[in-house]
Amino acid sequence: MHLLTFKAKNESDQVGILDKENVFSLEGLMQAYNSENAKSLEKKKDLLSIIQNDEKSLKEIKEAWEWAQKHTDKVSSFQYNIENVDVREPISNPGKVVCVGNNYMDHCIEQNVEPPKKPMIFSKWASCLIGNGDDIELPEESEQVDYEVELAVVIGKKTRNITEEEALDYVFGYTIINDVSARDIQFEDVQWVRGKSYDTFAPIGPAIVTKDEIEDPHNLGISLELNGEKLQDSNTKNLIFKIPYIISYLSKGFTFEPGDIIATGTPHGVGVFRDPQVFLKSGDRCKLEIESIGVLENKVR
Amino acid sequence: MHLLTFKAKNESDQVGILDKENVFSLEGLMQAYNSENAKSLEKKKDLLSIIQNDEKSLKEIKEAWEWAQKHTDKVSSFQYNIENVDVREPISNPGKVVCVGNNYMDHCIEQNVEPPKKPMIFSKWASCLIGNGDDIELPEESEQVDYEVELAVVIGKKTRNITEEEALDYVFGYTIINDVSARDIQFEDVQWVRGKSYDTFAPIGPAIVTKDEIEDPHNLGISLELNGEKLQDSNTKNLIFKIPYIISYLSKGFTFEPGDIIATGTPHGVGVFRDPQVFLKSGDRCKLEIESIGVLENKVR
Repeated sequence: MHLLTFKAKNESDQVGILDKENVFSLEGLMQAYNSENAKSLEKKKDLLSIIQNDEKSLKEIKEAWEWAQKHTDKVSSFQYNIENVDVREPISNPGKVVCVGNNYMDHCIEQNVEPPKKPMIFSKWASCLIGNGDDIELPEESEQVDYEVELAVVIGKKTRNITEEEALDYVFGYTIINDVSARDIQFEDVQWVRGKSYDTFAPIGPAIVTKDEIEDPHNLGISLELNGEKLQDSNTKNLIFKIPYIISYLSKGFTFEPGDIIATGTPHGVGVFRDPQVFLKSGDRCKLEIESIGVLENKVR
Repeated sequence: MHLLTFKAKNESDQVGILDKENVFSLEGLMQAYNSENAKSLEKKKDLLSIIQNDEKSLKEIKEAWEWAQKHTDKVSSFQYNIENVDVREPISNPGKVVCVGNNYMDHCIEQNVEPPKKPMIFSKWASCLIGNGDDIELPEESEQVDYEVELAVVIGKKTRNITEEEALDYVFGYTIINDVSARDIQFEDVQWVRGKSYDTFAPIGPAIVTKDEIEDPHNLGISLELNGEKLQDSNTKNLIFKIPYIISYLSKGFTFEPGDIIATGTPHGVGVFRDPQVFLKSGDRCKLEIESIGVLENKVR
């Protein structure tokens, strides 16, 4: 399933299931399913609490969603075209956003740096997350705002000190993140967090795809178009440190919590290392795509 | 007021008011105040939601607390000696923990570095926060775990892009943080967040002191004793970048949210720059003190 957070006109944020161009309100779905089947599955609040409740919530949602797909005549009252809703960041308040730097061999080559011997870890503050369709705002302080398409992992269960073999059991799903970066600030500050965390600097989504839908997260086409021109184009098979390794490595020292996000790194083609350099300017359109996960689009202003 | 989060035997976490050696349950206080005065002030949940509700919650708590101080015969049912409760981190899930590096002139001199021309910003993940009395756990990966006493600012209201003059209006209060740091990991990683964010690496508290009790946050004695020996001893008047400047500077690009924590930097005397170097070992006791704010004590294991 592709789970998202959205806002329909005059309503508040709610969870939905994304199916191609259509968004189905989860609250509407559960109501319809319960009333048609004399069930009393509980209502789900926000996507973070679904993730926190992990298997139980997800199992109930799947049960109702399977029913809905067989009863398409019963769904129109809670079905929206995606064009008619405001898609939000799937989770707005994760405990941490962990980022892995220099994690594609092609990205190391373009920078002329050695591939790292261990995962290179930095962070973004969660206050910079925005949803599909929201604007990336250029801060006045920076002249060098860059894009980075990345596969993001969403943690599903609290855990600490796990092996690589166990690691994927603790994943809830996957999504797309644009690790927007003010290069001048990032490099001048030396510590990257400020240049990586301006408000709106983490478009994410549109949906979190549950892990059962992704056969192999290390074999997905990953690309970014700026104003229709493809500037990043790679495959997650080129990740230097694979997802189970990253999770296990970090879990040696840190407790992961449901909803924590890991941005796994960006492939070659970022603006700062192009010749000539490319930086985002007002009116630009970023279109990020990861195979089997979706398309994340944001305008720059 | 000194507001803390604590757990009495067989109960769950709750908010309390710390008065010297005594902790008064806020829930107990509100019940007693309401019933004795035919009032219906609302119950407060966790400390973060009190902060989010800022002035209204705080005003009601003050009203009840002033009553309690005049009716000491009515408080015994919700009064605990601090020795008999488990003090927790005041807030366990702030949106961000922002840290300022090299922000005391004396700390720059001991490192032989130029004082920074602008605030040097890095971050810790909130998952490493622990309370007064909890143990700092030495990670297996590090041989060089160090201490750092710091004045922490707790943000009270959502804000963005404010002036220095306005900044203190957005502060809820102050507390003490120990910015525990695995020096070998911190310097080897270059990006500091991993070496600064191992679980238990941010003892904080014991209480958040509301800002009305702190006449001048830039004139407070600040010190740290390790096993009874004073190794850090300075005054917040030595901060290079003052609190209003830091808040205003960061707010140019970031939205602050209630509960966000800013660790303002540590004075000279940290272990890694001593001769001979001092690192934490199992059994050590850290005692951090900031004038008018309190004492934060944690054992190492």
